[in-house]
Amino acid sequence: MQKTKMTTAEFSVAGFQGAAVAAGIRYKNRNDLALILCDQVAAAAGVFTTSLVKAAPVLIDMERIASGQARAILVNSGVANACTGETGMTAALATSRLVSEALGIDDALVQVASTGVIGQQMPVEPFSQAMPELVAGLKADGLADVARAMMTTDAREKMSRRQCVVEGRTVTICGMAKGAGMIMPNMATMLGFVLTDAAISPAVLKQMLIASVEKTFNSITVDGDTSTNDTVLCLASGKAGNPLIENLEGADALAFAMTLGEVLKDLALMIVADGEGATKLVTIRVKGAVDDGEAKRAGMTVANSPLVKTAFFGSDANWGRIIGALGRSGAAFDPYRVDIFFDDILMVENGLGKDKETEKKATAVLKKDHFTVTVDLKNGSGDWTVYTCDFTLDYVKINADYRS
Amino acid sequence: MQKTKMTTAEFSVAGFQGAAVAAGIRYKNRNDLALILCDQVAAAAGVFTTSLVKAAPVLIDMERIASGQARAILVNSGVANACTGETGMTAALATSRLVSEALGIDDALVQVASTGVIGQQMPVEPFSQAMPELVAGLKADGLADVARAMMTTDAREKMSRRQCVVEGRTVTICGMAKGAGMIMPNMATMLGFVLTDAAISPAVLKQMLIASVEKTFNSITVDGDTSTNDTVLCLASGKAGNPLIENLEGADALAFAMTLGEVLKDLALMIVADGEGATKLVTIRVKGAVDDGEAKRAGMTVANSPLVKTAFFGSDANWGRIIGALGRSGAAFDPYRVDIFFDDILMVENGLGKDKETEKKATAVLKKDHFTVTVDLKNGSGDWTVYTCDFTLDYVKINADYRS
Repeated sequence: MQKTKMTTAEFSVAGFQGAAVAAGIRYKNRNDLALILCDQVAAAAGVFTTSLVKAAPVLIDMERIASGQARAILVNSGVANACTGETGMTAALATSRLVSEALGIDDALVQVASTGVIGQQMPVEPFSQAMPELVAGLKADGLADVARAMMTTDAREKMSRRQCVVEGRTVTICGMAKGAGMIMPNMATMLGFVLTDAAISPAVLKQMLIASVEKTFNSITVDGDTSTNDTVLCLASGKAGNPLIENLEGADALAFAMTLGEVLKDLALMIVADGEGATKLVTIRVKGAVDDGEAKRAGMTVANSPLVKTAFFGSDANWGRIIGALGRSGAAFDPYRVDIFFDDILMVENGLGKDKETEKKATAVLKKDHFTVTVDLKNGSGDWTVYTCDFTLDYVKINADYRS
Repeated sequence: MQKTKMTTAEFSVAGFQGAAVAAGIRYKNRNDLALILCDQVAAAAGVFTTSLVKAAPVLIDMERIASGQARAILVNSGVANACTGETGMTAALATSRLVSEALGIDDALVQVASTGVIGQQMPVEPFSQAMPELVAGLKADGLADVARAMMTTDAREKMSRRQCVVEGRTVTICGMAKGAGMIMPNMATMLGFVLTDAAISPAVLKQMLIASVEKTFNSITVDGDTSTNDTVLCLASGKAGNPLIENLEGADALAFAMTLGEVLKDLALMIVADGEGATKLVTIRVKGAVDDGEAKRAGMTVANSPLVKTAFFGSDANWGRIIGALGRSGAAFDPYRVDIFFDDILMVENGLGKDKETEKKATAVLKKDHFTVTVDLKNGSGDWTVYTCDFTLDYVKINADYRS
């Protein structure tokens, strides 16, 4: 398993092409519409928002991907097409048909993804005007263009490419994502697309995807909000030529699953680091919980506490706020057994704070761009790690001023 | 039932005296220690933080108030005495004994309350030095001094006085509170003390208090955090001379219960309006939920969403963020039946936004100091109202800079 720093041209994987154009859906003079095409029918799996309110493209994708197959992904960063009713559903289906007709493929193999403003209707006209140019532009080294076109308030594009060996064959996984939070302002959405040349069955791909998403995308938080459009799609072209991965057993399936997990983690951390207004990436590990579920709940409560996150921003080793968040998290523990570390500095031992000298060292840790808070509840073997960022003046500015 | 604007002298109720002194526990040159004394044994009830992590004074009070009786409340605004272990418990008990000995009363009738920094040990010495002056200063018009002495980051003192008639006798209820959030920075705590001259049994008082707190203090949020020290105490002196209220039946018991509820609501709204950095008080009513519990959960999810709260700050009628929060709240509803009003402006009808002209009117509503968001889920008769404030640049500044 290795991580490869790459150029745009290197961000490619056998069997896939990408393209992006400026369709003028919302933004002017920047690419806002992109397409990914697999040369053949790919094994496909998806994970979608758990919100009761699901955008039209999410509803379409969920239904279609049940087949375990897909060939194309159309994504726009103009409007979310959420809370848009039948009109929005009709528009999403129309854009899918533009793709299937232009490519001559089955409409049911097209996945559609939207990100942008909630509640605005999505105009179909820009899609139909741009489609010829978009399809003509498809190329093997066009995937980085897709990663950039899907950005909204993201400051940086998010791409990860890793490889592993499956039964003697090198398998490549390319992942891209957008999102500056679990949910963005009314530019709501986290989108992630993972493409691989592995030969793998849709059922196994789906199991691996779900397991990886739980530990990565579902373990990050910028502001605790969940989007109406959150979507992670994974397509496998099979071009690597490895024997089909048909079950979860064996070292090769494990190697692939772990590499897939690494790609998703790379992307998840890029999203948190690019959290709106964020200046710090913070890893929060809770161990010693009754079970993993309680460890995650406790970690997410700490990671979402505005008081904890503003203390991170202020480099304040204010562990009382962490204990406060743990106390209301619902996790079971004895407050007077809790240890809290900032990186390797033991700041709280058995629920009591250490001396001023220790606090000085902890404060130095909090001044770093990236640090880890480890909480040991000493009440079991539950262990979970979540990722968050600090809560800054810029977060408020970005979200208060967005539409003014 | 009437609300009375009052002077400091008028903030009084038969049977109670108050006093405050500058004990130098944490602050210098301002009152930080206060005492309330009832002339006789008062019927008493309390409601305390649901956090697993409870401060030493909370543990003491919970045990003592089970008797339904109390005579004194000692409160300091220096340190929270939370996460302080056995040392903190010993200190809290010592301060209680200073009061009972100075007043010559049963130690079990003393309630203690602390607010301030979590994790710091509470020095007993300032309490013992200040006790003679504190006890000597007790007077009937000293309750307003208590309300001011218990403030930490509060910008304003919070007092409410209302009266009602119980079987021909005028009954007075005086309430005071501190808190600039459900939880404050590491100045953690919401404290509320309610004093009345009504004659009422402890059991009935407790039932009324619990019911009122659920609709008031438990329905406000500044930042979604719950303190380790949250405490609401209610003491009844019986000096009004009304026949003892022994059950919840009848017009007089109802009148008293409603007046008690109004006092608690007055205080709760004062806390939200004084929320850290807040510029707007926002009432969020969710109706048409399956039941009241779901209505409250949906309302609290909206009220705690940083995206919704920053939009309030920016006067942005960004209803997509409200729908987004509702969608992840866990409440059951059909997104395409939801109506959303900003005051009386219907901005969203059956899940779809209205025109630009309507949005302009909604924006004007959001520019007000106080407005109401009404969400109708049209899925049942559940109905709940919560109160919150906007999320501002000053919130981040206050909480990031607190200890630096």
